[in-house]
Amino acid sequence: MVSKHDREGLNELVQRVFISFGFSEEDAQLSADVLIEADLRGIDSHGVARLPGYVRLIEKGRINSKPNIRIVRERAAVATIDGDGGIGLVVGPKAMSIAIEKAMQTGCGSVAVRNSNHFGIGAWHSLMATDRGCIGMSMTNASPLVATVNTTERLLGTNPLCVAFPAGAYPPIVFDLATSAAANGKLEIAEREGKSIPIGWIIMPDGTYSTDPSALKKGAALLPLGSFPELGLHKGYGLGAMIDLMSGVLGGAAYGPWVPPFVAFLDPVPGAFGQGIGHFFTAWEVEAFRDKQEYDEAIGHWIDRMKAAKPIDPAVPLMVHGEPEMVVRAERMKTGIPLHESVVLALDELALRCQIAWR
Amino acid sequence: MVSKHDREGLNELVQRVFISFGFSEEDAQLSADVLIEADLRGIDSHGVARLPGYVRLIEKGRINSKPNIRIVRERAAVATIDGDGGIGLVVGPKAMSIAIEKAMQTGCGSVAVRNSNHFGIGAWHSLMATDRGCIGMSMTNASPLVATVNTTERLLGTNPLCVAFPAGAYPPIVFDLATSAAANGKLEIAEREGKSIPIGWIIMPDGTYSTDPSALKKGAALLPLGSFPELGLHKGYGLGAMIDLMSGVLGGAAYGPWVPPFVAFLDPVPGAFGQGIGHFFTAWEVEAFRDKQEYDEAIGHWIDRMKAAKPIDPAVPLMVHGEPEMVVRAERMKTGIPLHESVVLALDELALRCQIAWR
Repeated sequence: MVSKHDREGLNELVQRVFISFGFSEEDAQLSADVLIEADLRGIDSHGVARLPGYVRLIEKGRINSKPNIRIVRERAAVATIDGDGGIGLVVGPKAMSIAIEKAMQTGCGSVAVRNSNHFGIGAWHSLMATDRGCIGMSMTNASPLVATVNTTERLLGTNPLCVAFPAGAYPPIVFDLATSAAANGKLEIAEREGKSIPIGWIIMPDGTYSTDPSALKKGAALLPLGSFPELGLHKGYGLGAMIDLMSGVLGGAAYGPWVPPFVAFLDPVPGAFGQGIGHFFTAWEVEAFRDKQEYDEAIGHWIDRMKAAKPIDPAVPLMVHGEPEMVVRAERMKTGIPLHESVVLALDELALRCQIAWR
Repeated sequence: MVSKHDREGLNELVQRVFISFGFSEEDAQLSADVLIEADLRGIDSHGVARLPGYVRLIEKGRINSKPNIRIVRERAAVATIDGDGGIGLVVGPKAMSIAIEKAMQTGCGSVAVRNSNHFGIGAWHSLMATDRGCIGMSMTNASPLVATVNTTERLLGTNPLCVAFPAGAYPPIVFDLATSAAANGKLEIAEREGKSIPIGWIIMPDGTYSTDPSALKKGAALLPLGSFPELGLHKGYGLGAMIDLMSGVLGGAAYGPWVPPFVAFLDPVPGAFGQGIGHFFTAWEVEAFRDKQEYDEAIGHWIDRMKAAKPIDPAVPLMVHGEPEMVVRAERMKTGIPLHESVVLALDELALRCQIAWR
């Protein structure tokens, strides 16, 4: 059962929950904004449904509600930031804002982050850059769920990459992809709906493939993008590994199988190498490379051409990346955010605990 | 039939051919080095087999043998370069060397390139960065061969991405991947060997799949990494598109279906938008983010862990990216570079035309 909810009411609830757990008003507001934006864009797995998960990590002391986020190393175009165990919803935007300020000066700014936590949707961070006329790139490592080549061990996270381009008269183009063939959330949806999943999403511990959406709980691993050796499995592995090295190894965060789990009931691997979850952000100011107006015309023309291609299925309109999310967003701004009853129940429980009236 | 050839003799031949067609000694040497390095690393499709193709483009006036490569826009951490129609084997290294110099100052350097040509293997450029203690990223757009989502039109090139990481006591890790499920060269090999190709590499103009390795000549298009909608086709499309925007749109090169073809018998699309092929390079100096020694230890540990995973097939050793190429390289440094007889024949012909004795 799904019910629709007013985004402002939801935002206030989320904000007040974070404040109840020790966040400053500013950090609570930002965290709420990032989560609600995920719901608005239709990325339900990363929206308010995650609030109870974040709260459990705060209660366990694995998210620091009052972090001292600080620059530990810096040059004109780059910095490394220690997130002090803060929530990624706050540490991420802080890091990206530094990358953008540097880009406005030198043309490019890159910030590596260690000792952070899950940063929500990459699109939030990358779109901060497009607001300032920059191309924005955000990436993060994540707890290990994905196998590599010739092994079924979970060695990498779904390690997503998001790159957003300002697009002149059009909304920004936003590439936002997990480097596994399918993200965990898609398996959960299939399981809830009692559907099987395609061969190529997961691999069982014995090396066989499975269509069982609950197989992750039986020790299976997600497969990298490419799925099979002959379709480029090593490429998806390469992308996930690259993101792990940029996000984890470069700035001093944990990496590979040592990235701390997002779920509170799993403890971090003892003797982990590196500190917390790691991110990597870059902003490039367009004007530093080319007249912005020329760029705007070219990218508009690029979009027009991609959308003008002859469709295989004429009933399905050709869209560029980021466009489907804008369609959902426009709809949800008008009609509200749909939440599954299990999510509403969990929010009710949090509201009760924090003594917040929300609906 | 394959014969083995001494790399020094080959190098001299290639160099002298380029000089015969108007290159400076310095540019000829560099171009030869890049091609031979591809052969040494086992990327035969990008090695001396390409020499006749480059020569035909020079003869057609589509590669400028005496380019005035110049910076057209610059800030502390970025630059845009006009390659003046020069060969990518020379323009690329020039651009990457500027990116590296900037990275040594500001921590990060990015260079967009327009008006260039095919730049050979991405690994050459990215490895220039690791030689200086930097992470190196190189990307290029390429002539349109790849379909996008819900269309069979060839709208993008195989647009490769290469990222190389210095790895302390180990050789650099090198991720080097075309963003299509399979690169064109793999189809040529299957065709030569009379083998069929996997479903998922190409799509026919009517939207059906094919196992025919010669289907590209019948109007088929390559499929993006992910191959099928349910396995993440839109992700491979997103990666290829992102590389087209960074390489083409940002610096003012051609983009999408207007990228000039590599083969001389196809003319560039009339009224093309943007100038020539585009590249994008970035270098990040490791030391600007973290003590190099700490980084070296962490990445060495990362490599050890990835290679220590339990293999599905114990007969196949687990390798990290870049390692297979190093194995081939060590072998070929000792025993020579194997060339198919059709390649040798084409080189003989060039040698004769340029009056070079080479074997």
